[in-house]
Amino acid sequence: MAEAQYILGLDFGTDSVRAVVVNADTGKEEANAVAYYPRWQQGLYCDPGKNQFRQHPSDYLESMEKAVRDALGQLPSQAGERVAAIGIDTTGSTPCAVDKEGTPLALKKEFAENPNAMFVLWKDHSALKEADEINGLARSWGGVDYTRYEGGIYSSEWFWAKILHVLRQDAKVAKAAYSWVEHCDWMPALLTGRPDPLSLKRSRCAAGHKAMWHPEWGGLPAEEFLVRLDPRLKGIRKRLYSDTHTSDSRAGDLSGQWAERLGLRPGIAVAVGAFDAHVGAVGGGIREGTLAKIMGTSTCDMIVSPAADVGDKQVAGICGQVDGSILPGMIGLEAGQSAFGDVYAWFVNLLYWPLEYAESAPNDPEQKERLRQDLKARILVNLTEEAARVPPGQSGLLALDWLNGRRTPDADQNLKGAVIGLTLGTTAPRVFRALVEATAFGSRAIIERFREQGVHIDQVVALGGISQKSPFVMQVTADVLDMPIKVAASEQCTALGAAMFGAVAAGIHESMAAAQDKMGSGFTTTYEPEPRNVRVYEELYRRYLALGTTLEPHLRELSGA
Amino acid sequence: MAEAQYILGLDFGTDSVRAVVVNADTGKEEANAVAYYPRWQQGLYCDPGKNQFRQHPSDYLESMEKAVRDALGQLPSQAGERVAAIGIDTTGSTPCAVDKEGTPLALKKEFAENPNAMFVLWKDHSALKEADEINGLARSWGGVDYTRYEGGIYSSEWFWAKILHVLRQDAKVAKAAYSWVEHCDWMPALLTGRPDPLSLKRSRCAAGHKAMWHPEWGGLPAEEFLVRLDPRLKGIRKRLYSDTHTSDSRAGDLSGQWAERLGLRPGIAVAVGAFDAHVGAVGGGIREGTLAKIMGTSTCDMIVSPAADVGDKQVAGICGQVDGSILPGMIGLEAGQSAFGDVYAWFVNLLYWPLEYAESAPNDPEQKERLRQDLKARILVNLTEEAARVPPGQSGLLALDWLNGRRTPDADQNLKGAVIGLTLGTTAPRVFRALVEATAFGSRAIIERFREQGVHIDQVVALGGISQKSPFVMQVTADVLDMPIKVAASEQCTALGAAMFGAVAAGIHESMAAAQDKMGSGFTTTYEPEPRNVRVYEELYRRYLALGTTLEPHLRELSGA
Repeated sequence: MAEAQYILGLDFGTDSVRAVVVNADTGKEEANAVAYYPRWQQGLYCDPGKNQFRQHPSDYLESMEKAVRDALGQLPSQAGERVAAIGIDTTGSTPCAVDKEGTPLALKKEFAENPNAMFVLWKDHSALKEADEINGLARSWGGVDYTRYEGGIYSSEWFWAKILHVLRQDAKVAKAAYSWVEHCDWMPALLTGRPDPLSLKRSRCAAGHKAMWHPEWGGLPAEEFLVRLDPRLKGIRKRLYSDTHTSDSRAGDLSGQWAERLGLRPGIAVAVGAFDAHVGAVGGGIREGTLAKIMGTSTCDMIVSPAADVGDKQVAGICGQVDGSILPGMIGLEAGQSAFGDVYAWFVNLLYWPLEYAESAPNDPEQKERLRQDLKARILVNLTEEAARVPPGQSGLLALDWLNGRRTPDADQNLKGAVIGLTLGTTAPRVFRALVEATAFGSRAIIERFREQGVHIDQVVALGGISQKSPFVMQVTADVLDMPIKVAASEQCTALGAAMFGAVAAGIHESMAAAQDKMGSGFTTTYEPEPRNVRVYEELYRRYLALGTTLEPHLRELSGA
Repeated sequence: MAEAQYILGLDFGTDSVRAVVVNADTGKEEANAVAYYPRWQQGLYCDPGKNQFRQHPSDYLESMEKAVRDALGQLPSQAGERVAAIGIDTTGSTPCAVDKEGTPLALKKEFAENPNAMFVLWKDHSALKEADEINGLARSWGGVDYTRYEGGIYSSEWFWAKILHVLRQDAKVAKAAYSWVEHCDWMPALLTGRPDPLSLKRSRCAAGHKAMWHPEWGGLPAEEFLVRLDPRLKGIRKRLYSDTHTSDSRAGDLSGQWAERLGLRPGIAVAVGAFDAHVGAVGGGIREGTLAKIMGTSTCDMIVSPAADVGDKQVAGICGQVDGSILPGMIGLEAGQSAFGDVYAWFVNLLYWPLEYAESAPNDPEQKERLRQDLKARILVNLTEEAARVPPGQSGLLALDWLNGRRTPDADQNLKGAVIGLTLGTTAPRVFRALVEATAFGSRAIIERFREQGVHIDQVVALGGISQKSPFVMQVTADVLDMPIKVAASEQCTALGAAMFGAVAAGIHESMAAAQDKMGSGFTTTYEPEPRNVRVYEELYRRYLALGTTLEPHLRELSGA
């Protein structure tokens, strides 16, 4: 019997890249390594107070090499020879300016330290104003509303808003920027040695969800629209793309140079890239009628629906609907919450504040950081334990979860969080419980919106860190949603999904359905809603909706919006 | 030259009693001692989760004896002989059931451990329902609205609501309760050996502000009203009082027994008691046109106005207006915020929460408590320092200060606090700043209400712990009020005010004006409003008002109201 082939799944997350080697026949995880982005870890090029988050391309290259080498190092030597394909996913929309050769500007000496020449990370909200302008123009210019398949509201987190913001902020970058790439476009282009921005294979997922690309209007928005938005955008459209590709297609063959750097065979298939959440949903077992919920710092909520069912109908207030963005041949519908685990982390940080002043802290910065993380982890454990003892609806509080704005339903980055009902007896665990309930209400608001628009949902599958780590959050969410939540067995659904795409791109499996069938990990825990809690939350959810409606204008006023 | 006479001011606060010996001619503080209530310190008889706060009468007796002995101990021996009068103030409304002899029930063996037989502390909110019923009946029964001189809204913090609540809760206490006394009535009655509930001299201040006593309807509310409220109140009116007295009058002479226990001369004058805030305003130098703001865990905001100016007009939404409740011959107007310093303490406690889990805490409970208080004090110092660096209006947040309900304007104990505008970048000092701004907005809302109702205010005098300890809070308050705030020089204005009343009751000074003139301490710091900040807060104050109006129904819903 021949040795099984391996597939390498590369999952570029917010803080790190993960390399997972899986068995192409069974999906079994053979090796798994993670490498953190070194500059990002130091907080370089970011300004959280201004919501500016940038990543240096060298972070991706160095950490990718390290992660792949580490993963292969866990296997018998020559294991690299058995890897038959690479699948890749990244965060997004995370665009970067490139020169005529497709080189990200920050890799050139003169731009090496310029945040505007780097990848603008998904969670960067510096382009709020530009997003507003895009929305305004899309509705007023008299032509097509290009936001119609992206939920009707363009976000500051997306491609065009970010490009325009950088062009306005930085004349030097604007001059040197020949074209722009998404992180998920650039990685396969680089590995296959085909970075030419005019011909590299662009991701359908990124283009359709974030760049207003749609076959109905022949690809990207019309030149006239872009120039009316800002003359700085003149000519850029024809230096981008009109064709896009689903991730079961082959972006090209691994170049000799990168095969050597990574310890792999040259010429193996590299699949077209896509966004992590979409790929993760595939790895987690998404299929028709299933909402795949990727629960981490934020959430992505994914659904696939046969094109025949959705047709020309636009689902209002969600992030987007794109043919083939999740699984080829199905409409991929994407929604999500801008902050989920981040809300809990925020509260832990708030409570940690006095500990920054502790005199006993070690002097060594690394030791200090380790202690800090340990203490925060302990705070989270204690909070969870005590919050779980407060019965549903008994915190006395009601919170809004929009601490990072609201992505769906009805994107509005000017919204903010709130906690109401505070008394002198309000304790930290009660606030924590209210925040957890609020994030669950935010999840429900998305599902209700899908249903209102006629999209059928009969089960929820959860993946991502929170689904593995917090039974408390998962139970509250199941109670609030009044639906069972199945947790995907694999802790690396995203890398596994990338590997599935790699396997199909290489022709090892004939379809994504076959790849999911053979390589899927199945489920572990199922959280069943508790009927008593469901009733309590039914009422609290109505109050959450009413509170949100009431506070929206007040929150926008605080944003100066 | 004869030795100067001394006056003893006894100030019964929430946690402790303070004994101050002052020079009758100059007001100079000769000695000052404080004694904490021992049972209260252990948290006995209280249930903060239910807003139940009770105090055992023995706490008052033991700590009074200790404080007076300690104060006299600071002076040459025989100093007790030079004390010519005692003035007394207490918290309120803090009523207690007494038997026919005027003994608080908890001093009797069978009730010694029963919280319902103890003093129901001012901040006890267990009688919310009863207050609602009083308000409902006062407006619907067709007779006089007895709440009209108490701001039009009866509070759960007050006399009748508390009595009714205890009568309903506890049949044994109801049976044994012959009459009821306010703490400020009971202390002078006890010291003068005249505790008979039918004849002891009742405080005008307590009766007029908290018991719906008014000459217009011949004293307390009619028997018919009380019985309609609840038949359990039948007959109680005639076992209370119809006459009341201002605190410049003599309640009686110090009894031999108490003279011995306290180390004083028998027969010296004991003045009629009053509430701490009213007495403090006098000690702080209140006069016509001055708002005296007592700033501690909560605030009391006091104004005096000539009877001719106020006339029959009722000032809506404030706590009360009573002829002689502050200074004899003037209408005393009282308002206040249910939580002020308590709001800051709440936030410090919230931040302290993770420190409860610190492994290095000492085992000895006393040592542990000392460490806890030290750490909390340090958190407050650090918070203040960093919050002061955030420019006005730049926290990104807006808060409501009703964490202990709202006392004025328009009392509503069902209201709660709120913080809106939270983002992932919101830090603890920003939340703290927003809370400080919220308490200042609450102060302004009171002043605006007085002005709307035609009461003239041309200066603010501040006294109490916050005014002495927090320049940051004082400056924010001055900026928000757009008025200079003068801080009273004495740190013990309340005990000083009590001593002034004692001096007049003893005939040492002929009037309160003369006593204030001779014995007053003057002012130290003045906080001037900063015009730039005033403009910023003008806008934020409007938003605070709008937010409050918007959230009121949501907050009441959370209270189940």
